[in-house]
Amino acid sequence: MIEKIRIVLCETSHPGNIGAVARAMKNMGLKKLVLVNPEKFPCAVATERAAGADDILQQAEVVTSLHEAVKDCELIFGTSARMREIPWPKVTPKQCAEKVLKHSNSDKVAIVFGTERSGLTNEELSLCNFHLYIPANPQYEALNLSQAVQIICYEIYQHYVEKEQQQDTLLGDAPVPASLDDVMGVFEHLEQALRAVDFIDPKPTRILMLRLKRLLLKARLDMEDVNILRGVCKAIIYKVSLSETT
Amino acid sequence: MIEKIRIVLCETSHPGNIGAVARAMKNMGLKKLVLVNPEKFPCAVATERAAGADDILQQAEVVTSLHEAVKDCELIFGTSARMREIPWPKVTPKQCAEKVLKHSNSDKVAIVFGTERSGLTNEELSLCNFHLYIPANPQYEALNLSQAVQIICYEIYQHYVEKEQQQDTLLGDAPVPASLDDVMGVFEHLEQALRAVDFIDPKPTRILMLRLKRLLLKARLDMEDVNILRGVCKAIIYKVSLSETT
Repeated sequence: MIEKIRIVLCETSHPGNIGAVARAMKNMGLKKLVLVNPEKFPCAVATERAAGADDILQQAEVVTSLHEAVKDCELIFGTSARMREIPWPKVTPKQCAEKVLKHSNSDKVAIVFGTERSGLTNEELSLCNFHLYIPANPQYEALNLSQAVQIICYEIYQHYVEKEQQQDTLLGDAPVPASLDDVMGVFEHLEQALRAVDFIDPKPTRILMLRLKRLLLKARLDMEDVNILRGVCKAIIYKVSLSETT
Repeated sequence: MIEKIRIVLCETSHPGNIGAVARAMKNMGLKKLVLVNPEKFPCAVATERAAGADDILQQAEVVTSLHEAVKDCELIFGTSARMREIPWPKVTPKQCAEKVLKHSNSDKVAIVFGTERSGLTNEELSLCNFHLYIPANPQYEALNLSQAVQIICYEIYQHYVEKEQQQDTLLGDAPVPASLDDVMGVFEHLEQALRAVDFIDPKPTRILMLRLKRLLLKARLDMEDVNILRGVCKAIIYKVSLSETT
């Protein structure tokens, strides 16, 4: 089950790190690697460092943007060492593993890692439901990329094993989670509605829109929520247009 | 306190691994590295891989036997992937971290790692109080040396931080969470706005209002969110009233 969880590496510079990540993933039972604009791939150095995990590299998907890598995902974690201007919901590796294991479709879960030098951009982080933070020595916080991946995969595997051992089947007609694209659709619709009622006029501040996006993402919308919110936006826009034409 | 815990590497073949171990240790606040008969040390490759953790390498102690490395220790863990002929007390990384943090003198604690190829010998393992086992994919269990060290140091640091946090009060400018009453205030305001745009007309279904309430509650609103949402409701109601009076 956990093998379908997506590990996404953005703009990795060193192919050796890609190989080490493949090995770290396979050690902990994960298989799905997605590379966004890797500097060098495929590459002999990556294959060598992957050791027996070469199959992960062979099946790796290469894409050109983070959005492309995660657009169908329902639960997205972005790793972040530094504090950002907008406080986003933050989780530790352990909390991340708990959330991942609770999520019904592991093939809609992504954990995203930035470049070796500077991590994920604020733009990339704003696509994520949660920011994932590995508590570390404040005097020397920057982990090697493959080590960070190892820790996350380790926590996921440990929780998986624990859950397997408990073996109890919790069933129920769970709601259908919304994908990132569904949520972004709501976000755009909302922007139109807010414009119609002059809430954002003439143009919204970047911070306000970022806060609204965060609010939608942290709510972990399901498809019922999406339909209700779109209905609300539609009603607002319709009402305003009606009164403005008459 | 945890900085004095000893990481002991036995007969390491690849100097790159020694460097990566130094970095992994420093990331998690550990400082004391002991090398038993390293194949190549010091070595430029090690220094390069250590990145900013070169100080750990410079202070590393080199000895000629495991016994020499741990003879003054009171609590010794030996990592072991395979089952051995003699059943020894076994611990996971988490259990290891708990034992380490409970031990009074951290400078008498050692965690020992074997060679890259075959791990610790039975002879070496017999010097240890506990065998330390990292649960991993049964089809591909062998972790890279530095990754194994990273996981152990990570668990120790997390337990250390947890213990620290229990002692002092949790501070930080976290967002102010909204109380249930704040959320219900938003809910009522939203109901008025939805009525204004005829989204609920003449009266809402119970299920719809329940879903909206659930949506607000699951978003775990903070006071910034409350203010934004109330601003949105106000703008909707105002805009509609304006167009209806003119």
